[in-house]
Amino acid sequence: MAKSAFAKDRLRSFVERVERLEEEKKALSDDIKEVYAEAKGEGFDVKILRQVVRLRKMDKADFQETEAMLDLYLSALGMR
Amino acid sequence: MAKSAFAKDRLRSFVERVERLEEEKKALSDDIKEVYAEAKGEGFDVKILRQVVRLRKMDKADFQETEAMLDLYLSALGMR
Amino acid sequence: MAKSAFAKDRLRSFVERVERLEEEKKALSDDIKEVYAEAKGEGFDVKILRQVVRLRKMDKADFQETEAMLDLYLSALGMR
Amino acid sequence: MAKSAFAKDRLRSFVERVERLEEEKKALSDDIKEVYAEAKGEGFDVKILRQVVRLRKMDKADFQETEAMLDLYLSALGMR
Repeated sequence: MAKSAFAKDRLRSFVERVERLEEEKKALSDDIKEVYAEAKGEGFDVKILRQVVRLRKMDKADFQETEAMLDLYLSALGMR
Repeated sequence: MAKSAFAKDRLRSFVERVERLEEEKKALSDDIKEVYAEAKGEGFDVKILRQVVRLRKMDKADFQETEAMLDLYLSALGMR
Repeated sequence: MAKSAFAKDRLRSFVERVERLEEEKKALSDDIKEVYAEAKGEGFDVKILRQVVRLRKMDKADFQETEAMLDLYLSALGMR
Repeated sequence: MAKSAFAKDRLRSFVERVERLEEEKKALSDDIKEVYAEAKGEGFDVKILRQVVRLRKMDKADFQETEAMLDLYLSALGMR
Protein backbone atom coordinates (compact mmCIF):
# COMPACT_ATOMS: atom_id res chain seq x y z
CA MET A 1 0.00 0.00 0.00
CA ALA A 2 1.54 3.41 -1.00
CA LYS A 3 2.75 5.42 2.05
CA SER A 4 0.03 8.09 1.68
CA ALA A 5 -2.72 5.46 1.24
CA PHE A 6 -1.39 3.74 4.41
CA ALA A 7 -1.45 7.12 6.25
CA LYS A 8 -5.06 7.74 5.14
CA ASP A 9 -6.19 4.48 6.67
CA ARG A 10 -4.32 5.15 9.89
CA LEU A 11 -5.73 8.70 10.05
CA ARG A 12 -9.29 7.44 9.54
CA SER A 13 -8.77 4.68 12.12
CA PHE A 14 -7.52 7.11 14.78
CA VAL A 15 -10.34 9.57 14.09
CA GLU A 16 -13.02 6.86 14.21
CA ARG A 17 -11.62 5.34 17.44
CA VAL A 18 -11.74 8.78 19.11
CA GLU A 19 -15.27 9.33 17.80
CA ARG A 20 -16.51 6.01 19.25
CA LEU A 21 -14.95 6.79 22.66
CA GLU A 22 -16.44 10.31 22.60
CA GLU A 23 -19.85 8.84 21.87
CA GLU A 24 -19.54 6.58 24.92
CA LYS A 25 -18.48 9.61 26.98
CA LYS A 26 -21.49 11.56 25.73
CA ALA A 27 -23.79 8.71 26.80
CA LEU A 28 -22.27 8.81 30.30
CA SER A 29 -22.72 12.61 30.45
CA ASP A 30 -26.38 12.09 29.58
CA ASP A 31 -26.64 9.45 32.34
CA ILE A 32 -25.13 11.94 34.84
CA LYS A 33 -27.65 14.59 33.76
CA GLU A 34 -30.43 12.03 34.34
CA VAL A 35 -29.22 11.34 37.89
CA TYR A 36 -29.20 15.07 38.64
CA ALA A 37 -32.66 15.45 37.09
CA GLU A 38 -33.93 12.59 39.26
CA ALA A 39 -32.39 14.22 42.36
CA LYS A 40 -33.97 17.54 41.42
CA GLY A 41 -37.31 15.75 41.12
CA GLU A 42 -36.90 14.60 44.72
CA GLY A 43 -36.24 18.17 45.89
CA PHE A 44 -32.44 18.21 45.99
CA ASP A 45 -30.55 21.36 44.86
CA VAL A 46 -28.51 20.31 41.81
CA LYS A 47 -26.04 23.21 42.06
CA ILE A 48 -25.18 22.22 45.64
CA LEU A 49 -25.06 18.52 44.70
CA ARG A 50 -22.50 19.32 41.97
CA GLN A 51 -20.47 21.32 44.49
CA VAL A 52 -20.55 18.42 46.96
CA VAL A 53 -19.35 16.00 44.24
CA ARG A 54 -16.48 18.43 43.44
CA LEU A 55 -15.54 18.80 47.13
CA ARG A 56 -15.55 15.01 47.66
CA LYS A 57 -12.82 14.74 45.03
CA MET A 58 -10.50 16.72 47.30
CA ASP A 59 -8.07 15.01 49.60
CA LYS A 60 -9.58 15.16 53.13
CA ALA A 61 -6.76 17.26 54.64
CA ASP A 62 -6.89 19.73 51.72
CA PHE A 63 -10.66 19.94 52.08
CA GLN A 64 -10.45 20.76 55.79
CA GLU A 65 -7.66 23.29 55.29
CA THR A 66 -9.59 25.00 52.48
CA GLU A 67 -12.72 25.12 54.65
CA ALA A 68 -10.79 26.65 57.56
CA MET A 69 -9.07 29.27 55.37
CA LEU A 70 -12.32 30.20 53.61
CA ASP A 71 -14.00 30.59 56.98
CA LEU A 72 -11.15 32.85 58.18
CA TYR A 73 -11.29 35.05 55.06
CA LEU A 74 -15.11 35.28 54.93
CA SER A 75 -15.29 36.10 58.64
CA ALA A 76 -12.59 38.77 58.23
CA LEU A 77 -14.76 40.35 55.50
CA GLY A 78 -17.92 40.11 57.62
CA MET A 79 -19.49 37.52 55.31
CA ARG A 80 -19.75 34.89 58.05
CA MET B 1 -36.90 5.71 58.76
CA ALA B 2 -37.16 9.38 59.95
CA LYS B 3 -37.53 11.82 56.99
CA SER B 4 -34.02 13.29 57.46
CA ALA B 5 -32.44 9.82 57.71
CA PHE B 6 -34.28 8.87 54.47
CA ALA B 7 -32.97 12.12 52.81
CA LYS B 8 -29.38 11.30 53.89
CA ASP B 9 -29.56 7.92 52.20
CA ARG B 10 -31.03 9.39 49.04
CA LEU B 11 -28.39 12.16 49.03
CA ARG B 12 -25.57 9.65 49.45
CA SER B 13 -27.06 7.41 46.75
CA PHE B 14 -27.29 10.25 44.21
CA VAL B 15 -23.73 11.44 44.99
CA GLU B 16 -22.29 7.94 44.71
CA ARG B 17 -24.13 7.20 41.44
CA VAL B 18 -22.69 10.42 39.93
CA GLU B 19 -19.23 9.53 41.22
CA ARG B 20 -19.33 6.05 39.60
CA LEU B 21 -20.44 7.53 36.26
CA GLU B 22 -17.74 10.23 36.48
CA GLU B 23 -15.13 7.54 37.11
CA GLU B 24 -16.24 5.70 33.95
CA LYS B 25 -16.07 9.02 32.05
CA LYS B 26 -12.54 9.63 33.38
CA ALA B 27 -11.49 6.17 32.13
CA LEU B 28 -12.83 7.01 28.66
CA SER B 29 -10.98 10.36 28.69
CA ASP B 30 -7.80 8.44 29.48
CA ASP B 31 -8.52 6.05 26.59
CA ILE B 32 -8.95 9.03 24.24
CA LYS B 33 -5.63 10.48 25.44
CA GLU B 34 -4.02 7.10 24.69
CA VAL B 35 -5.36 7.08 21.12
CA TYR B 36 -3.98 10.58 20.56
CA ALA B 37 -0.64 9.55 22.08
CA GLU B 38 -0.52 6.52 19.75
CA ALA B 39 -1.33 8.78 16.77
CA LYS B 40 1.40 11.20 17.85
CA GLY B 41 3.80 8.28 18.03
CA GLU B 42 3.02 7.55 14.38
CA GLY B 43 3.77 11.14 13.39
CA PHE B 44 0.26 12.63 13.34
CA ASP B 45 -0.30 16.20 14.63
CA VAL B 46 -2.62 15.83 17.64
CA LYS B 47 -3.81 19.47 17.56
CA ILE B 48 -4.94 19.05 13.95
CA LEU B 49 -6.46 15.63 14.71
CA ARG B 50 -8.56 17.19 17.50
CA GLN B 51 -9.66 19.94 15.09
CA VAL B 52 -10.66 17.33 12.48
CA VAL B 53 -12.70 15.42 15.10
CA ARG B 54 -14.44 18.72 16.03
CA LEU B 55 -15.15 19.58 12.39
CA ARG B 56 -16.56 16.11 11.68
CA LYS B 57 -19.22 16.76 14.31
CA MET B 58 -20.59 19.57 12.18
CA ASP B 59 -23.47 19.01 9.79
CA LYS B 60 -21.99 18.75 6.27
CA ALA B 61 -23.79 21.82 4.89
CA ASP B 62 -22.75 23.92 7.94
CA PHE B 63 -19.18 22.72 7.54
CA GLN B 64 -19.04 23.72 3.88
CA GLU B 65 -20.66 27.10 4.52
CA THR B 66 -18.26 27.82 7.37
CA GLU B 67 -15.30 26.85 5.19
CA ALA B 68 -16.49 29.14 2.37
CA MET B 69 -17.11 32.10 4.71
CA LEU B 70 -13.77 31.65 6.48
CA ASP B 71 -12.04 31.54 3.11
CA LEU B 72 -13.81 34.75 2.04
CA TYR B 73 -12.88 36.60 5.26
CA LEU B 74 -9.27 35.36 5.38
CA SER B 75 -8.75 36.24 1.70
CA ALA B 76 -10.24 39.71 2.27
CA LEU B 77 -7.67 40.22 5.04
CA GLY B 78 -4.81 38.91 2.90
CA MET B 79 -4.35 35.79 5.06
CA ARG B 80 -5.09 33.41 2.20
CA MET C 1 -15.91 52.00 -3.61
CA ALA C 2 -16.99 48.63 -5.07
CA LYS C 3 -19.21 46.69 -2.62
CA SER C 4 -16.58 44.01 -1.91
CA ALA C 5 -13.85 46.63 -1.36
CA PHE C 6 -16.23 48.42 1.04
CA ALA C 7 -16.87 45.09 2.88
CA LYS C 8 -13.13 44.45 3.20
CA ASP C 9 -12.61 47.76 4.94
CA ARG C 10 -15.53 47.17 7.26
CA LEU C 11 -14.29 43.63 8.01
CA ARG C 12 -10.80 44.90 8.82
CA SER C 13 -12.20 47.70 10.95
CA PHE C 14 -14.34 45.35 13.04
CA VAL C 15 -11.46 42.87 13.49
CA GLU C 16 -9.02 45.60 14.51
CA ARG C 17 -11.49 47.19 16.97
CA VAL C 18 -11.98 43.79 18.64
CA GLU C 19 -8.23 43.23 18.73
CA ARG C 20 -7.59 46.58 20.44
CA LEU C 21 -10.27 45.87 23.07
CA GLU C 22 -8.88 42.36 23.63
CA GLU C 23 -5.42 43.83 24.16
CA GLU C 24 -6.82 46.15 26.85
CA LYS C 25 -8.55 43.15 28.45
CA LYS C 26 -5.30 41.20 28.41
CA ALA C 27 -3.54 44.08 30.18
CA LEU C 28 -6.22 44.05 32.90
CA SER C 29 -5.86 40.27 33.27
CA ASP C 30 -2.14 40.79 33.79
CA ASP C 31 -2.89 43.47 36.40
CA ILE C 32 -5.20 41.04 38.23
CA LYS C 33 -2.47 38.39 38.19
CA GLU C 34 -0.08 40.96 39.69
CA VAL C 35 -2.49 41.73 42.54
CA TYR C 36 -2.80 38.01 43.32
CA ALA C 37 0.99 37.62 43.14
CA GLU C 38 1.40 40.54 45.57
CA ALA C 39 -1.16 38.96 47.92
CA LYS C 40 0.65 35.64 47.70
CA GLY C 41 3.86 37.42 48.59
CA GLU C 42 2.17 38.66 51.77
CA GLY C 43 1.12 35.14 52.70
CA PHE C 44 -2.46 35.06 51.40
CA ASP C 45 -3.81 31.88 49.75
CA VAL C 46 -4.61 32.88 46.16
CA LYS C 47 -7.02 29.97 45.55
CA ILE C 48 -9.12 31.03 48.55
CA LEU C 49 -8.87 34.70 47.54
CA ARG C 50 -10.27 33.84 44.09
CA GLN C 51 -13.08 31.88 45.75
CA VAL C 52 -13.90 34.84 48.02
CA VAL C 53 -14.01 37.19 44.99
CA ARG C 54 -16.40 34.74 43.27
CA LEU C 55 -18.63 34.44 46.36
CA ARG C 56 -18.79 38.24 46.77
CA LYS C 57 -20.38 38.44 43.32
CA MET C 58 -23.36 36.50 44.63
CA ASP C 59 -26.46 38.27 45.88
CA LYS C 60 -26.35 38.18 49.72
CA ALA C 61 -29.51 36.10 50.14
CA ASP C 62 -28.33 33.57 47.52
CA PHE C 63 -24.96 33.39 49.24
CA GLN C 64 -26.50 32.66 52.63
CA GLU C 65 -28.93 30.10 51.21
CA THR C 66 -26.13 28.34 49.34
CA GLU C 67 -24.01 28.29 52.50
CA ALA C 68 -26.87 26.80 54.56
CA MET C 69 -27.67 24.13 51.94
CA LEU C 70 -24.02 23.18 51.51
CA ASP C 71 -23.68 22.88 55.27
CA LEU C 72 -26.76 20.63 55.41
CA TYR C 73 -25.52 18.35 52.60
CA LEU C 74 -21.92 18.15 53.85
CA SER C 75 -23.09 17.39 57.40
CA ALA C 76 -25.46 14.69 56.09
CA LEU C 77 -22.47 13.08 54.38
CA GLY C 78 -20.29 13.38 57.50
CA MET C 79 -17.98 15.92 55.85
CA ARG C 80 -18.72 18.64 58.46
CA MET D 1 -2.75 47.75 64.62
CA ALA D 2 -3.00 44.12 65.92
CA LYS D 3 -1.65 41.62 63.35
CA SER D 4 -5.11 40.20 62.54
CA ALA D 5 -6.63 43.70 62.14
CA PHE D 6 -3.72 44.52 59.79
CA ALA D 7 -4.41 41.29 57.82
CA LYS D 8 -8.13 42.14 57.51
CA ASP D 9 -7.33 45.47 55.93
CA ARG D 10 -4.83 43.93 53.55
CA LEU D 11 -7.31 41.17 52.64
CA ARG D 12 -10.07 43.68 51.94
CA SER D 13 -7.70 45.85 49.93
CA PHE D 14 -6.58 42.96 47.70
CA VAL D 15 -10.17 41.79 47.17
CA GLU D 16 -11.40 45.27 46.30
CA ARG D 17 -8.50 45.93 43.90
CA VAL D 18 -9.31 42.68 42.05
CA GLU D 19 -12.99 43.58 41.98
CA ARG D 20 -12.32 47.00 40.44
CA LEU D 21 -10.07 45.47 37.77
CA GLU D 22 -12.68 42.77 37.04
CA GLU D 23 -15.32 45.45 36.62
CA GLU D 24 -13.15 47.21 34.04
CA LYS D 25 -12.63 43.86 32.28
CA LYS D 26 -16.39 43.27 32.26
CA ALA D 27 -16.92 46.67 30.64
CA LEU D 28 -14.41 45.78 27.90
CA SER D 29 -16.16 42.43 27.34
CA ASP D 30 -19.42 44.35 26.88
CA ASP D 31 -17.68 46.67 24.39
CA ILE D 32 -16.44 43.65 22.43
CA LYS D 33 -19.97 42.20 22.37
CA GLU D 34 -21.20 45.56 21.02
CA VAL D 35 -18.64 45.51 18.18
CA TYR D 36 -19.75 42.00 17.23
CA ALA D 37 -23.41 43.03 17.41
CA GLU D 38 -22.66 46.00 15.14
CA ALA D 39 -20.85 43.70 12.69
CA LYS D 40 -23.79 41.29 12.76
CA GLY D 41 -26.07 44.20 11.98
CA GLU D 42 -24.04 44.86 8.85
CA GLY D 43 -24.36 41.24 7.73
CA PHE D 44 -21.09 39.77 9.00
CA ASP D 45 -21.05 36.24 10.48
CA VAL D 46 -19.98 36.67 14.12
CA LYS D 47 -18.85 33.05 14.57
CA ILE D 48 -16.48 33.39 11.61
CA LEU D 49 -15.33 36.83 12.79
CA ARG D 50 -14.40 35.34 16.18
CA GLN D 51 -12.52 32.55 14.41
CA VAL D 52 -10.63 35.09 12.28
CA VAL D 53 -9.66 37.07 15.41
CA ARG D 54 -8.40 33.82 16.98
CA LEU D 55 -6.41 32.85 13.86
CA ARG D 56 -4.82 36.33 13.64
CA LYS D 57 -3.31 35.75 17.08
CA MET D 58 -1.27 32.88 15.64
CA ASP D 59 2.28 33.41 14.47
CA LYS D 60 2.18 33.58 10.63
CA ALA D 61 4.34 30.47 10.08
CA ASP D 62 2.26 28.44 12.59
CA PHE D 63 -0.92 29.62 10.89
CA GLN D 64 0.28 28.53 7.46
CA GLU D 65 1.55 25.18 8.73
CA THR D 66 -1.74 24.52 10.53
CA GLU D 67 -3.69 25.42 7.39
CA ALA D 68 -1.58 23.07 5.26
CA MET D 69 -1.86 20.16 7.73
CA LEU D 70 -5.61 20.63 8.15
CA ASP D 71 -6.00 20.67 4.37
CA LEU D 72 -3.98 17.44 4.11
CA TYR D 73 -6.03 15.67 6.81
CA LEU D 74 -9.43 16.89 5.57
CA SER D 75 -8.57 15.93 1.98
CA ALA D 76 -7.41 12.47 3.14
CA LEU D 77 -10.81 12.02 4.80
CA GLY D 78 -12.69 13.27 1.73
CA MET D 79 -13.89 16.42 3.51
CA ARG D 80 -12.16 18.75 1.02
